Amino acid sequence: MLVTGASGFIGRHLLPACVSAGHEVHAVSSRGRPSRDRGARRQDAHGEVRWHRGDLLEPAAAAALVAGIRPELLVHLAWSVEHERFWSSPENVRWVESSLALVRAFAAAGGRRAVIAGTCAEYDWERIGRVRADHQPPRCHELRTPTDPRTLYGACKRALNAVAERFAATAGIEVCHGRVFFLYGPGEQPGRLVAQVASALLAGERVATGDGRQVRDFLYVQDVADAFRALAESDVLGAVNIGSGEPVTVGGIVEAIAEQVGRPELVEWGARPRPEGDPDALLADVRRLRREVGFGARVTLADGLAATVQWCAEQKHVRLARTSRR
Amino acid sequence: MLVTGASGFIGRHLLPACVSAGHEVHAVSSRGRPSRDRGARRQDAHGEVRWHRGDLLEPAAAAALVAGIRPELLVHLAWSVEHERFWSSPENVRWVESSLALVRAFAAAGGRRAVIAGTCAEYDWERIGRVRADHQPPRCHELRTPTDPRTLYGACKRALNAVAERFAATAGIEVCHGRVFFLYGPGEQPGRLVAQVASALLAGERVATGDGRQVRDFLYVQDVADAFRALAESDVLGAVNIGSGEPVTVGGIVEAIAEQVGRPELVEWGARPRPEGDPDALLADVRRLRREVGFGARVTLADGLAATVQWCAEQKHVRLARTSRR
Repeated sequence: MLVTGASGFIGRHLLPACVSAGHEVHAVSSRGRPSRDRGARRQDAHGEVRWHRGDLLEPAAAAALVAGIRPELLVHLAWSVEHERFWSSPENVRWVESSLALVRAFAAAGGRRAVIAGTCAEYDWERIGRVRADHQPPRCHELRTPTDPRTLYGACKRALNAVAERFAATAGIEVCHGRVFFLYGPGEQPGRLVAQVASALLAGERVATGDGRQVRDFLYVQDVADAFRALAESDVLGAVNIGSGEPVTVGGIVEAIAEQVGRPELVEWGARPRPEGDPDALLADVRRLRREVGFGARVTLADGLAATVQWCAEQKHVRLARTSRR
Repeated sequence: MLVTGASGFIGRHLLPACVSAGHEVHAVSSRGRPSRDRGARRQDAHGEVRWHRGDLLEPAAAAALVAGIRPELLVHLAWSVEHERFWSSPENVRWVESSLALVRAFAAAGGRRAVIAGTCAEYDWERIGRVRADHQPPRCHELRTPTDPRTLYGACKRALNAVAERFAATAGIEVCHGRVFFLYGPGEQPGRLVAQVASALLAGERVATGDGRQVRDFLYVQDVADAFRALAESDVLGAVNIGSGEPVTVGGIVEAIAEQVGRPELVEWGARPRPEGDPDALLADVRRLRREVGFGARVTLADGLAATVQWCAEQKHVRLARTSRR
């Protein structure tokens, strides 16, 4: 099995799971083996992750890598996801190019099945984002919800996956792609919601939020990684949503973090306007993931948030009081 | 202005039109300047087409080419279109990669506007191809008809154009793409409908056809080329259908060719089954092309077919009797 983006947020959680499951895991990252990562130390203890340093954006890098490894399975997570900037960065276009080259090389080297990271941004947010009259948030369905991405990032992921799936049929390989909704967990980038709010509150800073009413689908990063492993081990084709299926408001998440840190008074509700184009609801229909792939999330939002806030506190050398406020 | 695929079917007809319109035309082709092409000789007479030999599928070829020319306009026609094989060839995927690299390079070199060749195969043929109860064939509309291509070729063209259009908005360039329906004319590949039927009939061979009832939208190649020039000179963004808007059945075209050759008795109607997935109707809504781009076809189907059959006869050194049979 070859995992790209192996030192990234999902990759770091995927590698140990795949090693434990008995896969011969090759990992590629432009940064090479992460040296100070706890997850990496665990893999080193197993001694079973074979690291390759390589920049897939370089022409011919993918072909050389894949020809040397000849993997049966490919889990392609690599992409540029620099916070905020990634929505419209031209890097997205380069990732389409190099990802397609990777999938072609994988097929040419005898690969059997490729799992590619997709995104809920592949859906047409303008046509799914409104909360319905019965107050039930709409759910994104892999086949029924229109895909007409409103961002360059979404368009690039959609294009990659659409081409890869059609290519698979002619090249004799299997391709599926996991449409990741919102993820969080220990190790997340500083600009992401949970890390950002927790870090500010832990530092005693005020947090300005919007109305917080957007409904989202959050899944703990280890569950996201395990879902990718399940996809790799399944024979499901096409798009599969990777989410919890549980609606939660952004405000609810902020509130839970503030309670855990013990500083709810620092949250300034409604101090920031809702970003333009931000949909009311982004919620996954997870029936394909559950029934066809056979995967169910294991970490509850409460437990996941607690672990993530704890991790943020450790990063800042802050000791959390175990508050029981609610 | 840089034209890719310049020695191809559309490109050969586009170059003289652009030179006549006063553009400084750079042409790139993997084959270099066509030596035996009549069109090419005409351009040589003008001395105004600057030919570049280059294989855009080679990494970095696009960047080097564009950096040298720094064109303001790009008309990107290059693609692998080997008859029949092109529907599912892995070359399609390579063309997505290299076309995106070209568009990125064009923007980086200060380009202003790119026009990219698209295809009616970008539309979802399963959802538009049925003739309606009122016997009016459905028309493909750029914004309203779903795009969910059923072929690798269609998926690749769709992916390229979707990404290029989103990229344009962030990169500060204009992108539009012409969705070409069916084209025909002097110089067409031997496997295409008009050339194939005319050549067989001119050789006195029987022609086995299907029921011939499929409705199609045929446009003469010079009109297609002129439409691309009009797109390049306009400021229209996004997808624009390039077609005649005139429904014609495949049977009607075969009949017209047979009449002109004077051998209608050689056509065996219904001898071949309809290819699987072949839609009943593929007809362009051409209101965007007419009203927004201001382009209207100039060559009627009768005149265009006559010119094409005449060209086929010249290729075979057959003198056509000017039949008036009908």
